[in-house]
Amino acid sequence: MRAVDLIRKKRDGGSFTAAEIGFLVEGIATGTVPDYQWAALLMAVVWRGMQPDETAALVDAMLHSGSVVDLGDIPGPKVDKHSTGGVGDKTSLILAPVAAACGVTVPMVSGRGLGHTGGTLDKLESIPGFTVDLDLPTYRRIARTCGLVLCGQTAEIAPADRVLYALRDATATVESIPLITASILSKKLAEGIDSLVLDVKCGAGAFMTREEDARSLAASMTGIGRALGKPVQALLTRMDEPLGRTVGNALEVRESIDCLRGGGPADLMEVSLELAAEMLLLGGVAANLDAARDRCRRAIADGSALERLRRVIAAQGGDPRVCDDPEAVLPRAADVSLFRAGCAGFITRLRAWPIGQASMLLGAGRQTVAARIDPAAGIVLVRTLGDEVQAGDVVAEIHVHPAHADRLPAALDLLREACEIGPTPPVPS
Amino acid sequence: MRAVDLIRKKRDGGSFTAAEIGFLVEGIATGTVPDYQWAALLMAVVWRGMQPDETAALVDAMLHSGSVVDLGDIPGPKVDKHSTGGVGDKTSLILAPVAAACGVTVPMVSGRGLGHTGGTLDKLESIPGFTVDLDLPTYRRIARTCGLVLCGQTAEIAPADRVLYALRDATATVESIPLITASILSKKLAEGIDSLVLDVKCGAGAFMTREEDARSLAASMTGIGRALGKPVQALLTRMDEPLGRTVGNALEVRESIDCLRGGGPADLMEVSLELAAEMLLLGGVAANLDAARDRCRRAIADGSALERLRRVIAAQGGDPRVCDDPEAVLPRAADVSLFRAGCAGFITRLRAWPIGQASMLLGAGRQTVAARIDPAAGIVLVRTLGDEVQAGDVVAEIHVHPAHADRLPAALDLLREACEIGPTPPVPS
Repeated sequence: MRAVDLIRKKRDGGSFTAAEIGFLVEGIATGTVPDYQWAALLMAVVWRGMQPDETAALVDAMLHSGSVVDLGDIPGPKVDKHSTGGVGDKTSLILAPVAAACGVTVPMVSGRGLGHTGGTLDKLESIPGFTVDLDLPTYRRIARTCGLVLCGQTAEIAPADRVLYALRDATATVESIPLITASILSKKLAEGIDSLVLDVKCGAGAFMTREEDARSLAASMTGIGRALGKPVQALLTRMDEPLGRTVGNALEVRESIDCLRGGGPADLMEVSLELAAEMLLLGGVAANLDAARDRCRRAIADGSALERLRRVIAAQGGDPRVCDDPEAVLPRAADVSLFRAGCAGFITRLRAWPIGQASMLLGAGRQTVAARIDPAAGIVLVRTLGDEVQAGDVVAEIHVHPAHADRLPAALDLLREACEIGPTPPVPS
Repeated sequence: MRAVDLIRKKRDGGSFTAAEIGFLVEGIATGTVPDYQWAALLMAVVWRGMQPDETAALVDAMLHSGSVVDLGDIPGPKVDKHSTGGVGDKTSLILAPVAAACGVTVPMVSGRGLGHTGGTLDKLESIPGFTVDLDLPTYRRIARTCGLVLCGQTAEIAPADRVLYALRDATATVESIPLITASILSKKLAEGIDSLVLDVKCGAGAFMTREEDARSLAASMTGIGRALGKPVQALLTRMDEPLGRTVGNALEVRESIDCLRGGGPADLMEVSLELAAEMLLLGGVAANLDAARDRCRRAIADGSALERLRRVIAAQGGDPRVCDDPEAVLPRAADVSLFRAGCAGFITRLRAWPIGQASMLLGAGRQTVAARIDPAAGIVLVRTLGDEVQAGDVVAEIHVHPAHADRLPAALDLLREACEIGPTPPVPS
């Protein structure tokens, strides 16, 4: 078998056998198929697509390029959630302890933020002492003792995906449904889960702006998951405005803790509870969605979800007092500037994309993989969609380190671009 | 400017500016744009194509990635010929001395055979002592003193093309008209020519099997040549059967010398003289095609073309006696096996592709870039298309080194596949 012949096959619209995909994936993991051949192949896949059986074979080969964790010794269902990424999307920090408190083990391997979207690992690292780098024995132990574990991809998990992900990022071949499906599922299935809830973000602030693309990805993920014997339930959720009121790492941890204490904003609570309820349903610990939602609300009301978060933070080296007094424990920006309404009216748009860009610019995200994060930086939305404002009212706080004060004018420009004020309230979508 | 943004632009069907193409070509020549990014870009170009102004900018950037030879000190026209490659295609060895004898300087930079097709450099190296590796001063000197020079691509000539050609070969991105156009024209224009005759082979034994593709390439080459101020005249010629009676390096040199002595087969003479006549016309040394053909025939009849070949062989270190007694000077295979007709009838097909494959298998070509050539190996067609044969008549001689005798059965199978015998003569195409 020669890689060049397989590239030609895909270029000309052909389909791969499982053996051919196995050869290619083993080749990139071991270095016998050079990255430039895979780069051409990736573009041919963006062009020609993949049949479902090819995508399933790709997931399977990438999954088995490294260790596949067996969590069979932990009783009960093991369910994870994956989001395609949004602005202010801190649902993982809320739903994982909620689901754990309800009897679902959540072995969650997350990623870092890139571009205008945040990443769960960056958020967690804003908690002093918290480490996301766990070896497999520690990962298994924490999953067993806490009912959840929150860590980054280890070297053992799907190494082919790590190489291909970096290659896709450098070759403009990220936007391909079979490649996205294979990347997510190979990592997630290697964690040792039984099933997965997928949050497909759709809207102007998401990577997928068209609902049709979001539906295709959801269909691909659920179909391939089923083919591999791992149920996947997909939810399409809007990502036009940021989720909740905060964008930025420590700010989002604080808001997540607010949610677990029963004081979170409605939009964030709704999405988090809906996803958590789906996890309970997939895990078989609730009979129907209504019962699952009630169970999740109880876990917040009785403090058991917050207690799960406190436990996992302690187990992963973080300061658990953050759950009781986040303001005192989390890093805070020395400077807080204010973004004010330029005129009176109703906030008719509050676009996630420029807000995510502004947050990244302030140091909350990274423009390149190597960039350093400022955990305290970010944006707090004091007002939100539909609110009535007078000219000069504070719409948002801008949290920034004094060293980055020069970036403030550009961040303000982005906020002005994000926030539209009109004479009448917006029609709810 | 970032390569990944440019890849995305082409992926989405956009067009590059000359500055963008300049950035990308400089990047691959200097190593600042890694090969894997170019590999993805090449596949995107195969997919989306290039506009004529993009292709012209690509030729220009690749041409100027190295030295551009100025042959302005040599009086008279400088014209070269390029063929897209065929089986038994030794026209370069015939038309270059013919055109030189008629007053056209032919500074010919050729390639090696790859796959089922032969390469001029491999053929020339079957002449004892002949070297194709010339530095630029020697190249200029021989072009001036002999009126022709026959060499390989030097490190100075279009280095971006050398890198991209190897990358295209490894990534199944050879078959793209803008990329083929840029590769050929950048090399050829860097030689210092005024104009170019292009022999676009079309048929079952050529890289382009469909006439429509061959016509597109011809149109692209002539259009881009014109845009860059270098006239290109393209001829479409059939490549269904091998050209002439021999396939294999020393065997083809011998047949070329037969042609220059006036004793070549009709099909090979016709194509060689037609291409040579076009070179005379482009060079302005003949008033029309009829006059040009007559002039070429005279150069063969009066021995002046053969004398040019003798001179250039001597200048490039080869044994010039090959022109007088090729049998004595050229290497000969120790074993000659015979391929015989299986039944009586007329030879209705003699397919170039399996014959080229058989010749490569016998050692006349290379399956990988690093493979060694056996200069004596190859096939002599004793009978040709339309000939009447009896069962058991010899159709072809198989020249092979005893060390490769084990490849004989496979070569015979290929010849059986190539040669069709029917009850009636074939209709001339």
